[in-house]
Amino acid sequence: MIKVGIVGGTGYTGIELLRLLLRHPEVSVDLISSRGEAGRRLDTLFPTLRSHTDLVFTDPAKADWTRCDVVFFATPHNVAMNTVPALVSDGVRVIDLSADYRLRDAALWESWYGETHASPALCASAVYGLPEMNRAAIKEASLVACAGCYPTSVQLGFLPLLESGLIDPANLIASSASGVSGAGRQAKVANLLTEAGENFKAYGVAGHRHLPEIEQGLATLTGGSVSLTFVPHLVPMNRGIHSTLFGRLLKANQDLHGLFSERYANEPFVDLLPVGQTPETGHVRGGNRCQIGVSVPQDRNTVVVTVAIDNLVKGASGQAVQVMNLMFGLPETAGLAGIALAP
Amino acid sequence: MIKVGIVGGTGYTGIELLRLLLRHPEVSVDLISSRGEAGRRLDTLFPTLRSHTDLVFTDPAKADWTRCDVVFFATPHNVAMNTVPALVSDGVRVIDLSADYRLRDAALWESWYGETHASPALCASAVYGLPEMNRAAIKEASLVACAGCYPTSVQLGFLPLLESGLIDPANLIASSASGVSGAGRQAKVANLLTEAGENFKAYGVAGHRHLPEIEQGLATLTGGSVSLTFVPHLVPMNRGIHSTLFGRLLKANQDLHGLFSERYANEPFVDLLPVGQTPETGHVRGGNRCQIGVSVPQDRNTVVVTVAIDNLVKGASGQAVQVMNLMFGLPETAGLAGIALAP
Amino acid sequence: MIKVGIVGGTGYTGIELLRLLLRHPEVSVDLISSRGEAGRRLDTLFPTLRSHTDLVFTDPAKADWTRCDVVFFATPHNVAMNTVPALVSDGVRVIDLSADYRLRDAALWESWYGETHASPALCASAVYGLPEMNRAAIKEASLVACAGCYPTSVQLGFLPLLESGLIDPANLIASSASGVSGAGRQAKVANLLTEAGENFKAYGVAGHRHLPEIEQGLATLTGGSVSLTFVPHLVPMNRGIHSTLFGRLLKANQDLHGLFSERYANEPFVDLLPVGQTPETGHVRGGNRCQIGVSVPQDRNTVVVTVAIDNLVKGASGQAVQVMNLMFGLPETAGLAGIALAP
Amino acid sequence: MIKVGIVGGTGYTGIELLRLLLRHPEVSVDLISSRGEAGRRLDTLFPTLRSHTDLVFTDPAKADWTRCDVVFFATPHNVAMNTVPALVSDGVRVIDLSADYRLRDAALWESWYGETHASPALCASAVYGLPEMNRAAIKEASLVACAGCYPTSVQLGFLPLLESGLIDPANLIASSASGVSGAGRQAKVANLLTEAGENFKAYGVAGHRHLPEIEQGLATLTGGSVSLTFVPHLVPMNRGIHSTLFGRLLKANQDLHGLFSERYANEPFVDLLPVGQTPETGHVRGGNRCQIGVSVPQDRNTVVVTVAIDNLVKGASGQAVQVMNLMFGLPETAGLAGIALAP
Repeated sequence: MIKVGIVGGTGYTGIELLRLLLRHPEVSVDLISSRGEAGRRLDTLFPTLRSHTDLVFTDPAKADWTRCDVVFFATPHNVAMNTVPALVSDGVRVIDLSADYRLRDAALWESWYGETHASPALCASAVYGLPEMNRAAIKEASLVACAGCYPTSVQLGFLPLLESGLIDPANLIASSASGVSGAGRQAKVANLLTEAGENFKAYGVAGHRHLPEIEQGLATLTGGSVSLTFVPHLVPMNRGIHSTLFGRLLKANQDLHGLFSERYANEPFVDLLPVGQTPETGHVRGGNRCQIGVSVPQDRNTVVVTVAIDNLVKGASGQAVQVMNLMFGLPETAGLAGIALAP
Repeated sequence: MIKVGIVGGTGYTGIELLRLLLRHPEVSVDLISSRGEAGRRLDTLFPTLRSHTDLVFTDPAKADWTRCDVVFFATPHNVAMNTVPALVSDGVRVIDLSADYRLRDAALWESWYGETHASPALCASAVYGLPEMNRAAIKEASLVACAGCYPTSVQLGFLPLLESGLIDPANLIASSASGVSGAGRQAKVANLLTEAGENFKAYGVAGHRHLPEIEQGLATLTGGSVSLTFVPHLVPMNRGIHSTLFGRLLKANQDLHGLFSERYANEPFVDLLPVGQTPETGHVRGGNRCQIGVSVPQDRNTVVVTVAIDNLVKGASGQAVQVMNLMFGLPETAGLAGIALAP
Repeated sequence: MIKVGIVGGTGYTGIELLRLLLRHPEVSVDLISSRGEAGRRLDTLFPTLRSHTDLVFTDPAKADWTRCDVVFFATPHNVAMNTVPALVSDGVRVIDLSADYRLRDAALWESWYGETHASPALCASAVYGLPEMNRAAIKEASLVACAGCYPTSVQLGFLPLLESGLIDPANLIASSASGVSGAGRQAKVANLLTEAGENFKAYGVAGHRHLPEIEQGLATLTGGSVSLTFVPHLVPMNRGIHSTLFGRLLKANQDLHGLFSERYANEPFVDLLPVGQTPETGHVRGGNRCQIGVSVPQDRNTVVVTVAIDNLVKGASGQAVQVMNLMFGLPETAGLAGIALAP
Repeated sequence: MIKVGIVGGTGYTGIELLRLLLRHPEVSVDLISSRGEAGRRLDTLFPTLRSHTDLVFTDPAKADWTRCDVVFFATPHNVAMNTVPALVSDGVRVIDLSADYRLRDAALWESWYGETHASPALCASAVYGLPEMNRAAIKEASLVACAGCYPTSVQLGFLPLLESGLIDPANLIASSASGVSGAGRQAKVANLLTEAGENFKAYGVAGHRHLPEIEQGLATLTGGSVSLTFVPHLVPMNRGIHSTLFGRLLKANQDLHGLFSERYANEPFVDLLPVGQTPETGHVRGGNRCQIGVSVPQDRNTVVVTVAIDNLVKGASGQAVQVMNLMFGLPETAGLAGIALAP
């Protein structure tokens, strides 16, 4: 059994990680910390865990992470970067669900996050945790920075098109939409049911922190620079991310569905839909699945890719478990074979 | 492996049954029928099943159910009662999720359903499928009529109080509320998002078909007659049933929490909450759990029991799997240990 | 034109009061205060007001309320009781939407709110603002304590039955349900869309602050004491309150529908539905309407009354405008004739 | 008073039209027809209308429309085109909310709707009902084809940019999202709360019938052809349309906010938001308002325009009333000055 520790665990990625790891056949969750909830049983914070665990939140100052084989960070940004260097040098492998190590260029990170990075040297060596782009490196990694929720959907949608040079990398557009759990479990007026319910809006139009992460990833596919216009929206639902991607085709009459089909033929968690179908977030709820549809409307010169994931699973905690499976030589689908909940 | 057949399977209890049975360690789903969808792959109707099954709906007229160890009916009422007699006489065990055999008195059934019962003799011999009330009989049964969704929540909430004679059986009140999946997957204007969303209403106030089922069950607990006023409501959400039950206490100063705690101590799927806590449907979403809270407001003479289940799991398909586990000597929790989805 | 002032106005009852008063033909809103938002234009906080008003929040310390004919308090409890006495002695009429003056017995208020009442003498003289019970007194009042949202629905539903002595006042039950706007515009985790969405729960079972208010009101109808078991629930929607009321009939074979019909014949905002129909919150959204259905299920001895209002209109701000109309001799429906929004 | 008739009126645009017209100070609704509901009181179908009207649905075969000054068609497509020619020749002015006369080119209409147009000659002479583009012609029109819901939002968003030649008309992208009321009041499984709730999806990617309507409108602004990629999405809410528009800038460093501000300075129902703000559908619920935000993310070469309307008001029935006001020389805002409902 792999001994797992979790830093933070009072948010939605935390409870989702617990939902997956507590039922994972090869894992024991040994240690979970929370500054605010130290000493409290997990199942009093999350009643869904009643009878599934007796774990108690540990004070992070008193936690001995060295007894863990791997430590997950399910924290806001600006936590992992302070603690990870010591863990890594102690030989503990780290899977960071936060944004701290996603950008290889620490200066770029600092410009987007408005603060000084505490361990910039690790930014360059951290492995980006999107298995479909980076499987080999993840297997050997000591520190993985898991891909963000929007970035997972946008990169998996553009990947085959950019790899094959079929669309203009200077003119990419992503119109994405997320359920409210993407905003976390913080008390904010804007995320009250009364504000976010019966409502739809764009946000972060001028610049969202996932933009540089996505552009960094897409640029590795083209070998050059890319330019993306990225607009996220908030949807009145709990879970799910949907991205509608627009690319200008450089060549006509290509078999785009065949291209996607071939590229993702062996990916256990990428599900290309038949021609003419489009994904729905309700079809991936609770599952570690990325569903994709490809279309060239009216046979013109713009390709439209639609992508749906569960933001808390393939967009966060499920992906982190997939990464762990790779790092520890387990079957990639271990603990992730549950069927999505419908309706 | 237990060979399972499913009659009907295009509704919400059908897809939920498939979600559970396709991942059940001791089961293989061999046969599933649908009149309207015969010949169609299941995963084209339910995209959540893509890559999880290659099954195709069989025409019920051509289905050979005798190769199954057990057949589930996930049909509207008025289907099972025509087919079950032949199956039972062929030695196939049957678990009926519909209402056809829930009332032992066929005449009572006919008065509530407004049609003639096709196999009234079986009504009296069918075993009522609520394991917490009826475990021993279920184990031996050839035909189980699974408890309905509302009836499960109301009976589990009143059970300890009526068994112990602490409340007046002639003055029971249940104010229940269900998510819209309880209305099935039929196209009806009243269940459109535009009608049921941002809305709350009572329905069936004059008389709901679950009333005689509940009263029949409660009467077995008291040995006499009971009188229940039952008002169901429709909640703008997909899943979940919540019942708020009111009983007039016949004795003061009883340890009601202790009573529930003792009665349900060994029940794997009944979760009595600590004193002062109340259940939420969002805490049992996707799990086969019944959460219960008990309270005597203002220490007066009315006890309030609050109960939450997922109507499609403990209120339907999960309960049917629990029943199957009992019938076939499997661990009662086999295939049902998944953690509820939150949020 | 009646000169109106509003204390507080950053919450949901505040914005709803503005929606109604800014379009009221006989009113000018002259002054609105907010401690936290002083100096800010209203329409930057509430974009729905753009182009409808140029008002700016005033610092309450600098507000001269004496230039107003009437001042509304759209504040949490514990604000009005400190300021109202001075206003009343200055001859400014006051309509308080908060709970400060709803209980005539200041000691009872203190026991439920856990603090000392700042102006207990006014509790006894304040007029309770439920026009259907108290119209004459409201017309002459200098201080009106508007009925709460749940209390409005529960009292209007029980009123004809208790006035006529048809039900047992010692055994009243109210199972109510509210949209999330009833919880106000405060940032609380429990009211996030992710927590309150796709969820249904009871709360305040042990004792909700509206209980003594309702019992006080109902007792005036019977001339003696009443005993109510009141359980509120939270519904995943923005607006609406629904109450399902249960009473034990003392006499059989009464024409209950006729009783309600006669009692409410001249009430402009109480709408008794035809026999067999039940109200829906979605049918009163945005309107100052109380819809009521009456039923005796199975012709037994329990009457069920179902009631729907918009908690922010007839349950708060609309009722406050109705009270103002009465106080100033305007047509009772002035400014309140808008049709509810469907869907 | 203008005598109004309504053909159809059992759908969501019908009830919304009634909500507005029954309170309009210069209108009397004299006649409303429905094939399916002939003889039925409106308020039994739509309980929100109780006490607001005694109207009864008339059989269309027996309706004498010539006594009306204006007739609205709130019907699906393929109804108006059969009846309108006779009305127009009788001198009755017509406002058609359906799609029958929106495309000037009847052959194009036939290719998108897959049927023969019954009165193609009128297609060319019908006036397109988007007041902000076409006010003068509407005033004189005998037949107005009101703009569709998506087309209203997309055209108002692109209008200033295309009129001024600032973006490339060959590379326009619109990612739009609608509440479920846009799908009408038909019983369809896909629009059940259980299917559309907790879900987000694109639909009609290959080609939506609003595409030719939008391109026709935009082409009048450029004087040449335009090419739009239009992807609509379904949002789990009742009301609201949001469009996120992407255009490639042909000139750098333009004052785009100033451009919009000037263009819409005198438009009563177009509300340009301050720099940096984005509209929300929840801020226009129930109001005839179009809120717009303009942004050039990261100061690159793509402009993003975000637009929100209530699909049933400015996207349908409110716009139809605005058109009527223009046709009959009334103040353009008559009957449309209500404040949006929040929350």
